[in-house]
Amino acid sequence: MGDEAKTLSVDEVAQHNTGESCWVTLYGTVYDVTGFLDEHPGGSRAILRLAGKDATEEFDPIHPPGTLDEEMVGVTKVGTIDTSAMPKHPSNSEERKKEIEESDRDPPLESLLNLDELEALATKKISKRAWSYYYSAGDDLWSKSFNNQVYRQILLRPRVFIDCTACDLSTTFLGNKVDLPIFISPAAMARLAHPDGEHGIAKAAAKFGAMQIISNNASMTPEQIVDNAAPGQVFGWQLYVQKDRSRSVAMLDRIHKLREHIKFICLTLDAPVPGKREHDEKMQFEGVFDVSVSGKGDSDKRPGGGGVGQQLFWGTAGDLTWKTTLQWLSKNTDLPIVLKGVQTHEDAYLAAQFAPQVQAVLLSNHGGRALDTAPPALHTLLEIRKYCPEVLNKIEVWVDGGIRRGTDVVKALCLGARGVGLGRAALFGLGAGGQAGVERTLEIAMTVLKAETETCVRLLGVESVHQLGPRFVNTSVVERDIYNGPSGLDIAGLWTGPTPKL
Amino acid sequence: MGDEAKTLSVDEVAQHNTGESCWVTLYGTVYDVTGFLDEHPGGSRAILRLAGKDATEEFDPIHPPGTLDEEMVGVTKVGTIDTSAMPKHPSNSEERKKEIEESDRDPPLESLLNLDELEALATKKISKRAWSYYYSAGDDLWSKSFNNQVYRQILLRPRVFIDCTACDLSTTFLGNKVDLPIFISPAAMARLAHPDGEHGIAKAAAKFGAMQIISNNASMTPEQIVDNAAPGQVFGWQLYVQKDRSRSVAMLDRIHKLREHIKFICLTLDAPVPGKREHDEKMQFEGVFDVSVSGKGDSDKRPGGGGVGQQLFWGTAGDLTWKTTLQWLSKNTDLPIVLKGVQTHEDAYLAAQFAPQVQAVLLSNHGGRALDTAPPALHTLLEIRKYCPEVLNKIEVWVDGGIRRGTDVVKALCLGARGVGLGRAALFGLGAGGQAGVERTLEIAMTVLKAETETCVRLLGVESVHQLGPRFVNTSVVERDIYNGPSGLDIAGLWTGPTPKL
Amino acid sequence: MGDEAKTLSVDEVAQHNTGESCWVTLYGTVYDVTGFLDEHPGGSRAILRLAGKDATEEFDPIHPPGTLDEEMVGVTKVGTIDTSAMPKHPSNSEERKKEIEESDRDPPLESLLNLDELEALATKKISKRAWSYYYSAGDDLWSKSFNNQVYRQILLRPRVFIDCTACDLSTTFLGNKVDLPIFISPAAMARLAHPDGEHGIAKAAAKFGAMQIISNNASMTPEQIVDNAAPGQVFGWQLYVQKDRSRSVAMLDRIHKLREHIKFICLTLDAPVPGKREHDEKMQFEGVFDVSVSGKGDSDKRPGGGGVGQQLFWGTAGDLTWKTTLQWLSKNTDLPIVLKGVQTHEDAYLAAQFAPQVQAVLLSNHGGRALDTAPPALHTLLEIRKYCPEVLNKIEVWVDGGIRRGTDVVKALCLGARGVGLGRAALFGLGAGGQAGVERTLEIAMTVLKAETETCVRLLGVESVHQLGPRFVNTSVVERDIYNGPSGLDIAGLWTGPTPKL
Amino acid sequence: MGDEAKTLSVDEVAQHNTGESCWVTLYGTVYDVTGFLDEHPGGSRAILRLAGKDATEEFDPIHPPGTLDEEMVGVTKVGTIDTSAMPKHPSNSEERKKEIEESDRDPPLESLLNLDELEALATKKISKRAWSYYYSAGDDLWSKSFNNQVYRQILLRPRVFIDCTACDLSTTFLGNKVDLPIFISPAAMARLAHPDGEHGIAKAAAKFGAMQIISNNASMTPEQIVDNAAPGQVFGWQLYVQKDRSRSVAMLDRIHKLREHIKFICLTLDAPVPGKREHDEKMQFEGVFDVSVSGKGDSDKRPGGGGVGQQLFWGTAGDLTWKTTLQWLSKNTDLPIVLKGVQTHEDAYLAAQFAPQVQAVLLSNHGGRALDTAPPALHTLLEIRKYCPEVLNKIEVWVDGGIRRGTDVVKALCLGARGVGLGRAALFGLGAGGQAGVERTLEIAMTVLKAETETCVRLLGVESVHQLGPRFVNTSVVERDIYNGPSGLDIAGLWTGPTPKL
Repeated sequence: MGDEAKTLSVDEVAQHNTGESCWVTLYGTVYDVTGFLDEHPGGSRAILRLAGKDATEEFDPIHPPGTLDEEMVGVTKVGTIDTSAMPKHPSNSEERKKEIEESDRDPPLESLLNLDELEALATKKISKRAWSYYYSAGDDLWSKSFNNQVYRQILLRPRVFIDCTACDLSTTFLGNKVDLPIFISPAAMARLAHPDGEHGIAKAAAKFGAMQIISNNASMTPEQIVDNAAPGQVFGWQLYVQKDRSRSVAMLDRIHKLREHIKFICLTLDAPVPGKREHDEKMQFEGVFDVSVSGKGDSDKRPGGGGVGQQLFWGTAGDLTWKTTLQWLSKNTDLPIVLKGVQTHEDAYLAAQFAPQVQAVLLSNHGGRALDTAPPALHTLLEIRKYCPEVLNKIEVWVDGGIRRGTDVVKALCLGARGVGLGRAALFGLGAGGQAGVERTLEIAMTVLKAETETCVRLLGVESVHQLGPRFVNTSVVERDIYNGPSGLDIAGLWTGPTPKL
Repeated sequence: MGDEAKTLSVDEVAQHNTGESCWVTLYGTVYDVTGFLDEHPGGSRAILRLAGKDATEEFDPIHPPGTLDEEMVGVTKVGTIDTSAMPKHPSNSEERKKEIEESDRDPPLESLLNLDELEALATKKISKRAWSYYYSAGDDLWSKSFNNQVYRQILLRPRVFIDCTACDLSTTFLGNKVDLPIFISPAAMARLAHPDGEHGIAKAAAKFGAMQIISNNASMTPEQIVDNAAPGQVFGWQLYVQKDRSRSVAMLDRIHKLREHIKFICLTLDAPVPGKREHDEKMQFEGVFDVSVSGKGDSDKRPGGGGVGQQLFWGTAGDLTWKTTLQWLSKNTDLPIVLKGVQTHEDAYLAAQFAPQVQAVLLSNHGGRALDTAPPALHTLLEIRKYCPEVLNKIEVWVDGGIRRGTDVVKALCLGARGVGLGRAALFGLGAGGQAGVERTLEIAMTVLKAETETCVRLLGVESVHQLGPRFVNTSVVERDIYNGPSGLDIAGLWTGPTPKL
Repeated sequence: MGDEAKTLSVDEVAQHNTGESCWVTLYGTVYDVTGFLDEHPGGSRAILRLAGKDATEEFDPIHPPGTLDEEMVGVTKVGTIDTSAMPKHPSNSEERKKEIEESDRDPPLESLLNLDELEALATKKISKRAWSYYYSAGDDLWSKSFNNQVYRQILLRPRVFIDCTACDLSTTFLGNKVDLPIFISPAAMARLAHPDGEHGIAKAAAKFGAMQIISNNASMTPEQIVDNAAPGQVFGWQLYVQKDRSRSVAMLDRIHKLREHIKFICLTLDAPVPGKREHDEKMQFEGVFDVSVSGKGDSDKRPGGGGVGQQLFWGTAGDLTWKTTLQWLSKNTDLPIVLKGVQTHEDAYLAAQFAPQVQAVLLSNHGGRALDTAPPALHTLLEIRKYCPEVLNKIEVWVDGGIRRGTDVVKALCLGARGVGLGRAALFGLGAGGQAGVERTLEIAMTVLKAETETCVRLLGVESVHQLGPRFVNTSVVERDIYNGPSGLDIAGLWTGPTPKL
Repeated sequence: MGDEAKTLSVDEVAQHNTGESCWVTLYGTVYDVTGFLDEHPGGSRAILRLAGKDATEEFDPIHPPGTLDEEMVGVTKVGTIDTSAMPKHPSNSEERKKEIEESDRDPPLESLLNLDELEALATKKISKRAWSYYYSAGDDLWSKSFNNQVYRQILLRPRVFIDCTACDLSTTFLGNKVDLPIFISPAAMARLAHPDGEHGIAKAAAKFGAMQIISNNASMTPEQIVDNAAPGQVFGWQLYVQKDRSRSVAMLDRIHKLREHIKFICLTLDAPVPGKREHDEKMQFEGVFDVSVSGKGDSDKRPGGGGVGQQLFWGTAGDLTWKTTLQWLSKNTDLPIVLKGVQTHEDAYLAAQFAPQVQAVLLSNHGGRALDTAPPALHTLLEIRKYCPEVLNKIEVWVDGGIRRGTDVVKALCLGARGVGLGRAALFGLGAGGQAGVERTLEIAMTVLKAETETCVRLLGVESVHQLGPRFVNTSVVERDIYNGPSGLDIAGLWTGPTPKL
């Protein structure tokens, strides 16, 4: 990209609004993105809608700082915009913050009794675009809804006549002390919901002694998110390996400098290619037909195309393997590795072979966002109990997806999960915020869930989450539905080598 | 508390309406409750709404006589209110009674054909607050609705060509003769539904020769309830052990004096801490925002908080154990003990080890009000049949929760239950009353259910409830859903001692 | 009853409109029924509504000719009404017939494609009272709807590459040739739906060579129904044994005179006491509150009370037994006996011990009208296949309840049923009639069902219903739900004698 | 038929509008069809509606060219119509094409994200008659909806950490290379949806390298459909054997001449008689009552009668058998045979005995159109895996019915299906076309489904469809529902001969 600082008028920029010459303004700088149109994940449509205009407001909440210069191929810097004649853009997010606050005639946050009510409020408050991205899941949302339903299929078995005055939810993740077995799963684009973004989440997590895994697609940099963390506050960092491995290595180096708080790398495996999230993709067609699209039309005629979710995948590698990727990663980090997205007992078993570098798996179907009709984490957990229970002793097993109630948390723990992640629920908690700020609302969500969890632990008749076990749950209904075929562990060729060494 | 009888004007009292100085009037006496605000179960909100006002109408139906002087810490008597300038309060309940009656344009009670129709009518007639308390159950009301649904999953097996002219529903509970296998489960706060309260229930029960278990949280004293009971009328008394054991002992002493009618102590185990009943808790926010809340705001910001259900738990002990509590109780009463709230076959088995002092268990998930997704009583009953059927010979097994039809009653009896308790259904029967008075309406409920039960017994082809047995029910659907894991009876450490002695 | 023929004016009769003196006019005769009020099944309410009035229109369609003189106790004939001053009553039914026809703006009957559409049309056309009686079933209508649903749970297994040009539905019932395996189950009160009543059904059955079982509670006499039957047309007669056995014997003697067509006695066992049919019972309260009810109020205050269904049970014996009743019946008839209402394999097994006098059982839960959550006939049929398949060789097994489609008929036959009865469907077919007359509409119903059955038989790849068998149906879903407990056949005391002799 | 070319006026023809003399005009020729009225499948009604009128518009889209002269008995050519005085008819279809296009204010096709959205759009656009024919299925549409639901009952088992950059969907059918495992099932009457008809489908299939099976009831001739096919484009031809076998032989001869593209004969077995498709049949009654119907009324009084589906069966043989028909067919064609409509493992097993002439079976319940509650193809596939897995090695097994998503395609392949057919979905894709033309819309459908399939294959962690297998699917829920009775393979008499020879 060039270096010139030519000042351009708004009118001048506005004329470059076609596929032949497409300029956009971002943070006061004007870029010629004509050559990038066909490169953009999700098609040229998303850009052409903003051709000749200031795209900052749309670009900002879904791209972390620094995205622009490093990643865009086919982009040329043209100059800077003459801001005097331009309506102020909300680059510092303050205005959007105020807007959210002013429209605020909502029920008092303390009257919200559960996560469903928080989601209902957030749905009213956040933009349709943010809602579409958060709400969306694969195909028919079957897995998304089954993720939660499967918890309803499990009955609790409360024991009585046991002293339940004490109740201890504290535990450890990979040896790091936390106050709660509930953590924040990596969920992208928090600033779509609220300008406080992932840093707001971090501040709330600090209050609860809760662990947070920072999304690879966070809308803030890891340094910003971890800034001012509480002593002993625990983070993980989610890695989507990039096609250009050197970019991932560079990122790991940045993470290593934050090792006081970031304690592990959470390598994401469950979405080597993006799933099909129709609610999200539909948003591409909102307003698109007002735009004069010329020349580039052809490549745009493919059906569907890129919602926010699709665009985030740009540059992500699809060629990861047990043999090569873990070896590469172990060379580039000495932090423990957590594998996210395991959905079969076979892969949980394989992961355990890579201990001690791999220290945990996060059973996840990506919130139902990757492959519809993929199994909920609880199915995988029950599969592990059935086919290879030794995995639970070798590594930690975490789960996410579908958590709405404290009883859900406890059920997962009873079945051997070390911890339970909140994804979508945290974002909706965020979005319900408004005037009170994101810390306050996520705090509500965490308070509610923590209280529900404590009540459940007490009513089961134990004093600590470490006393929970399978005899506290009736899983008959779920167990007859889990995979019942031959275990892949016995299938030659699945994993043929000796116990893997890194 | 002081003794002075200073007379205070309504205006004077009205000025003490903040967290800094909070007075309320109850039954004509003015109390300074500022020091009690942070003690009140459910937060200060419930009191501050009534600061400076006469709180009798709200206080009365949910606190039995005598609550005030003994229990409140941080309360000072200030004086008596100048009643001449004050609108009459309904302390004798007569006005509320009339109000209910006057608004009466309902269908004739004898046209109500089943318990659902009675509930529908009661829902229209009782206050939103009473409805919220009765209707509410834990979390998502899953257990509450499953309690009933599980009866629909069982098919009956009617035998034919058997003389069914005779039909005898009479049975005994702990040796006490009753005319019906249906009893009134302990359900709190009957006066919320109707001023006749628990005494009204007692009068109706007398007509049917039905047993009634008096709630520990009854809105009338046991003496009031048992007053004028019919000869041979059978009651039990429900005990929530208090943190301050001496208060429980004192209460037991009062009960012992009523032993002509109160035949056993029903020790409640299924709710050592309150469940989360959102319908009930929501009521705390009705109207609260008109009140100027100052100073004490912080402690009030916790989400949710106390509905009627939460407040009833105040002072209840959470440290009961098999070893200590039964020993303590056996020292303080010679009445037989019934353990209420057993939800696993393991606890039923343990209870049977304590025979003969423990003479029955009441399988109950507290009407779904304690822990959502707790098993319905019928699951526990089938568990007992599967893992430790000898329990049914050692002690009586009673069930409650979800009964709507005579066929439900019969199904429970077929599976070994000695009796079946009505909780919520009785309260709604109460609330549907209106002009006809509570006796009449509960009578309708009992008549309907008794007639349905008789029809069912006849159509199965037996003459007496004692001839019912498992061959009259097809439980295939339910049986495949009950707990199928290892029995806790075999797990070392669950109960390691010799057969317990008290 | 008296004999006098005193002529009474309408005004004079109208004054006897209270519980103290209650007269009603029936077919031109005035009766004093004061003494009968407390005897009437369903309470005095049903009569008091009509006190002082002409009750013929209400009485006629639900009482067969001859009911009045023989059965009513506490009834005195007062005189005859002065018809000159009276509005014509519809005793000959012609007017009601015309009324039905005139209101006729319905879709052409030949556009009705299935039984559901016929029911929908009938629901519009027949009186609310008739609809309530036909539609009603026990309690929550669970068995009624499950009766049909269970057929949907069975999959067919069509075989291919088989010549299906021939298709023969003809079969025999107890050796009597019929053209269809579908028969008309005994269903009471056909004249409620249409003045042509059971005789109309008989004429339609003749066209299809279908068997008809005449209800004990038919609204016409057996002689009227069988009148002009086609050569070889087959009927059965349903017997509800009366408390006064001599009345049943007298009736059997009348039936024996019709033995050219009535080929067996269908003894009904599934309803020794009436079930609770709330839709039907509700009708008692329609308009009742306009009537001045005095004196007799008390006995009327019982909830619910008698719909049409309840009233029909008046006089029916509840003391039938395997030992005594079959012996009594075999002494009083030489016709073969069919036992209707068998709902367990145990009773089917017992019935088979009484062959050859007992030649068939009709598996039936009375259309779900007797005991709600009683098993559908198909459950009983599968139970028989599992526990005592030899029954299918010893006697014929018929089923009814829930048939809506030809595939339902075929599924029952595949599982061993000899024939399949239509009850409610036939009555609704009747009610849809209107202008075209009852023959025509029932004909539509039969045509539709026959055509569906033929199509199904052909598509399964067989030529005759006698080639159907269990390998043509997948019953996995139903089989896991049927009774799985110990068979009552092994339980001592169930049937202890030697093979029974009559 | 006669030869005269007498010119008739519109008025003259219009007078022959009764059952006594019924003329219709088709493609400018006037026919006397009085003698054909009682021959017409579906009754005379369908013709009488058009008596005296030009019937071309109704006749054309459901009868392929050439139908008229050869097949109609009782038809006499009367003359030609005087077209000068006649409104132009749309024989060349151009007008209807324009109409469809002009009414076009639909969402852009590229915004349609899945097959459901295409169906929703098509439902709006195509005629009620076409919709009724396409949408209709047997009886209550149970099988039709279960066909899809059964795919939802299967969970996927995605494997992680596997390189999924490559993704190959190409496969072979009977040795013929295709780019997709998805083919177009034979579905009749494509011109009802769009004038481009089956030829439009062929052009779209070419773009995707997809196989197409031409319906025996196509609305175009095979020659028209195959015209201008791409090199290597693969077709099959569906055969409904005619009663008059010589007509089928003549048709086979025509097919043999197209053997460059038509590679096999798909003999249809699942509909030897038509099912009952009520949506379709209802259309017969639209407008019929405006017509004066005289004389022929009687035969028309049968309920229901012929929709489009019924009419298509006219002339089809119902006497096919394993022994005779395959022998006859093998004498008349040397093309490989595919048997369509197999619904049991027994018939799949028998089919495999006839290899190598029979080279594949297409498991199909005719889209739920033949016998309602017939099993979905996936049940049959699982039956084969359970009872006779060797079939999968001897012949290819294809499936159709219920496919809506790429995950459905992949699930079928995992369980051993070689390919998956689209029927109704293709037609609805067709009907959504409008302005863009049929190629474009079917292209959208195929693009969407192909992309979904690729995403699924990648997320399961395989590179080619040939690597899919049962360990990628959890079929626990479905497997407990499939046929569990004795296999017909063991039943004597089912197939008694030696391994069949043709």
